[in-house]
Amino acid sequence: MAEKLKIISLGGLNEIGKNLTVYEYGGDMILVDVGMGFPDDDMYGIDVVIPDFTYLIKNRERIRGIFLTHGHEDHIGSIPYLLRDVNAPIYATRMTAGLVKLKLEEHRLLDKTKLITCEAGEVVRAGKFSVEFIHANHSIADAVSFAIKTPVGTVVHTGDFKIDPTPIQGGMMDLGRLGQLGKEGVLALLADSTNVERPGFTKSERSVGASFDALFRGCEQRIIVTTFASNVDRIQQIIDVAARYGRKVAVTGRSMENAMRVSTELGYMKIPDGVLVDLNHIKSLPKHKICIITTGSQGETMSALTRMAFNTHRQVDIQAGDRVVISASAIPGNENSIGSVINELYRKDAEVVNERLGALHVSGHACQEELKIIHALVKPKFFIPLHGEQRHLKTHAKLAQEMGMDPRHIIISDIGKVIELTPNSAKINGTVPAGRVFVDGYGVGDVGSVVLRDRKHLAEDGMIVVVVSMSGEDGSVISGPDIITRGFVYVKESEGLMEELRRVAVNSLENCRRDSRSDWAAIKTEVKNALSNFLYKKTKRNPMILPVIMEV
Amino acid sequence: MAEKLKIISLGGLNEIGKNLTVYEYGGDMILVDVGMGFPDDDMYGIDVVIPDFTYLIKNRERIRGIFLTHGHEDHIGSIPYLLRDVNAPIYATRMTAGLVKLKLEEHRLLDKTKLITCEAGEVVRAGKFSVEFIHANHSIADAVSFAIKTPVGTVVHTGDFKIDPTPIQGGMMDLGRLGQLGKEGVLALLADSTNVERPGFTKSERSVGASFDALFRGCEQRIIVTTFASNVDRIQQIIDVAARYGRKVAVTGRSMENAMRVSTELGYMKIPDGVLVDLNHIKSLPKHKICIITTGSQGETMSALTRMAFNTHRQVDIQAGDRVVISASAIPGNENSIGSVINELYRKDAEVVNERLGALHVSGHACQEELKIIHALVKPKFFIPLHGEQRHLKTHAKLAQEMGMDPRHIIISDIGKVIELTPNSAKINGTVPAGRVFVDGYGVGDVGSVVLRDRKHLAEDGMIVVVVSMSGEDGSVISGPDIITRGFVYVKESEGLMEELRRVAVNSLENCRRDSRSDWAAIKTEVKNALSNFLYKKTKRNPMILPVIMEV
Repeated sequence: MAEKLKIISLGGLNEIGKNLTVYEYGGDMILVDVGMGFPDDDMYGIDVVIPDFTYLIKNRERIRGIFLTHGHEDHIGSIPYLLRDVNAPIYATRMTAGLVKLKLEEHRLLDKTKLITCEAGEVVRAGKFSVEFIHANHSIADAVSFAIKTPVGTVVHTGDFKIDPTPIQGGMMDLGRLGQLGKEGVLALLADSTNVERPGFTKSERSVGASFDALFRGCEQRIIVTTFASNVDRIQQIIDVAARYGRKVAVTGRSMENAMRVSTELGYMKIPDGVLVDLNHIKSLPKHKICIITTGSQGETMSALTRMAFNTHRQVDIQAGDRVVISASAIPGNENSIGSVINELYRKDAEVVNERLGALHVSGHACQEELKIIHALVKPKFFIPLHGEQRHLKTHAKLAQEMGMDPRHIIISDIGKVIELTPNSAKINGTVPAGRVFVDGYGVGDVGSVVLRDRKHLAEDGMIVVVVSMSGEDGSVISGPDIITRGFVYVKESEGLMEELRRVAVNSLENCRRDSRSDWAAIKTEVKNALSNFLYKKTKRNPMILPVIMEV
Repeated sequence: MAEKLKIISLGGLNEIGKNLTVYEYGGDMILVDVGMGFPDDDMYGIDVVIPDFTYLIKNRERIRGIFLTHGHEDHIGSIPYLLRDVNAPIYATRMTAGLVKLKLEEHRLLDKTKLITCEAGEVVRAGKFSVEFIHANHSIADAVSFAIKTPVGTVVHTGDFKIDPTPIQGGMMDLGRLGQLGKEGVLALLADSTNVERPGFTKSERSVGASFDALFRGCEQRIIVTTFASNVDRIQQIIDVAARYGRKVAVTGRSMENAMRVSTELGYMKIPDGVLVDLNHIKSLPKHKICIITTGSQGETMSALTRMAFNTHRQVDIQAGDRVVISASAIPGNENSIGSVINELYRKDAEVVNERLGALHVSGHACQEELKIIHALVKPKFFIPLHGEQRHLKTHAKLAQEMGMDPRHIIISDIGKVIELTPNSAKINGTVPAGRVFVDGYGVGDVGSVVLRDRKHLAEDGMIVVVVSMSGEDGSVISGPDIITRGFVYVKESEGLMEELRRVAVNSLENCRRDSRSDWAAIKTEVKNALSNFLYKKTKRNPMILPVIMEV
């Protein structure tokens, strides 16, 4: 029996972010993207979420290469965590490699990692795979799709993409090559589903330029623009329009400064001579000569725009009349933090220009008509929707079906599921370990569902510690019980309640003694239940109760 | 010197919700609306937010009446809390009074409260005020604006409103009366700012009916519709279209059942005979004969739609092919919870029809062109924008200015600020106590910023309790130190770390003994700092550390 091609996603299915897909054939493995995700609202204290690498660590000797489609965090952010246990060469285009390099430097992994720069059109051999880089459009420069040739057939993996006929640089996505591959025969297409719910076409990045022009032309005020730091082409357009109207540009926000440095060094951004000035020097310029480009388009607490709005930025405060342009849309869940920054800008009598009022942002992902073009060009035998929640995967499957694809040739997978492909069949067969690993500070994976459940409990009702010293000989109370609470009530205004709690604890300890209980665990449970029942009846709350017995 | 009219908002300015405005003249006071708000994301464990009633309690003898514009929670929700300390007659239209009655029954306040039903057109005298009820349109039946006559002049207070020329019932807003008042002379206008950022007109509630018709016509599947429980006219339209296509209607979700009962009893909803069936009986009906109306349009965890989607509803599960219609837009901050319900519906292969795909929801608030009509009709001398965050208040002020109003006649106030009006002047003069009081379980106001800060700390990093018994005589350690953690790390997999923590605590206690410290507070601080420094260096985390010394 011939070998099968296995495709396993360890992230990016039924979730947004932490994209990672494993391709496996005949003892060889390659990875496409190693991304991170952001925590949900109820993952208290978690910094980032990364894929479960168990399967990769177990098979580390078989990994022939890591291939990256583009430099966004949800496609490259977990690389430092993977490289703790896995050493494999990383292949990426120049811009992506530049961003990965920054990351590796920060984690002191640059020396021991083989980072290879490729260009669109190149083909890389990795074990039994050969991977072709195909130019794509996206909201970051130098994005690619991959054509992965295997003995079973060719797989096209789009990565995040849109079709932009008039991009700022790099030219239009290489549709011709996709068409050629389609004519030669493609076994499977794995494609971005992010915008599959949106009809029509995503507008060209270039269309934003006209909106900027209208906002800069004739404006006498200081202009402050925020956008995604990684959107090099957007920033290029802001700089160009600023230069056109004789403004100097200052930049604030660490991620913005990093991204601009990398993209300028690599030639993806061209800043006209004399346009860029240090933020400290803008005070000496008249208002109509100033443009500040800043982070903070999502209302992030520590971002430069938020700090400017709330007067905690060291160099710049928002002033009445400033024109603040928000060139971004809200990522779901960020509406309220963006809203609070906008309110603060209004409070300072700044003029806020955001999405609702003009075409200030375009998406980096393909809408329905673009996806149809890709399906039509690639003409795959099998289709696997990628990068989306269940609603997106199902809607993408429906789109493929409407274009005539046999529904039995569409595989909606999930993370950890193993898709087995032969030249004539595709099916899910088995699973590998997959899930969400939480990073909290330096800790990777030491916070899990139990810890998060406790955090949620503590967050909602606070906690009560009951401490008592008891004699190890006769179980009599030597000292206490003392009641300590945090996050429960104002203690000073609730002294009566604290005294009642102490009395409930004393009574319950006396009951234990009367019943001659000497098992510390049983006594703790008794005290805990007594306090818990009392409190729920009295306050309708359920704080975490921690009884501590010191045997002396 | 003549008396001044004072206008004080205790809620609804620079925030969404908990609307409450106080009008004060010559020793008399009336209140317009007594609403509640919902907690922000970082107000862990808080159930609802209510206004600070300090000023009202202090002046309770002077309150001549509570006037309600309509029955939404953000306008009536705090009534039971106010009535604990204040006894004043409540004036409301029939529908609003019906909803308030439910609330008073639940809080056992019905007997001692004077609840007076009024109709649009009526005028109520309350001390030196006379309050006229003026019919308005909104997303709940029987909404009114008020014309408040005072010796200083007439004030028009719109409440939440839109102008709907073709409402489902009750007729169009009484624009004529507003025009008449305008011609007679209006001192001040206080108007809803919710939708002031949106250009144009809000669509008529009736326009949604056509969308429902298209979704029901020829549909062979079960239809499940979710919307806001209080939107009587929306529910009426769903029932009508169901009846038109021969479907029976079953209702699930407590707030939906309550609202339908009240509105049917009071004649605001007319359900054709034989259309309503018990949820338990729908199993015996063919799919194309079923329509279920349910709560859950905001993805609320315990709502009926969420329970149906996740198979925890006792009577109904979502089945493949069900057509689920979401007739609502997301309230900012709810996008992710709605998203997770939608994903679950897709997972069950239900068909989800939501906002993006059709005109399934219209707002209950006036857009820019409607607001302009109100300003033009009322022609107030002074304007005070109400009901909005800073961005809305400022934008509404700009709209008034564009219509020719003198900017010095526009007052952007804040909660607690006292606006003083004479026939020729309006200015802010002084403040009264105002703020947000948190309700958590039975507790009102016993959770404040310190407790919330502790909850946030506990939520993000968990906590560590260090307990030690020490001799009261010589300060020697009798037992311990014991380390207990919650919400910090998996204890079982971090035994090494726990042991290190114990050692750090032991060392720091030994240091204290060597330095002959005997002040328990100083020893606690020493232990806490030692552990905190150790942990931050080791884990980059900052759990709450609680040292407890038992003196024995």
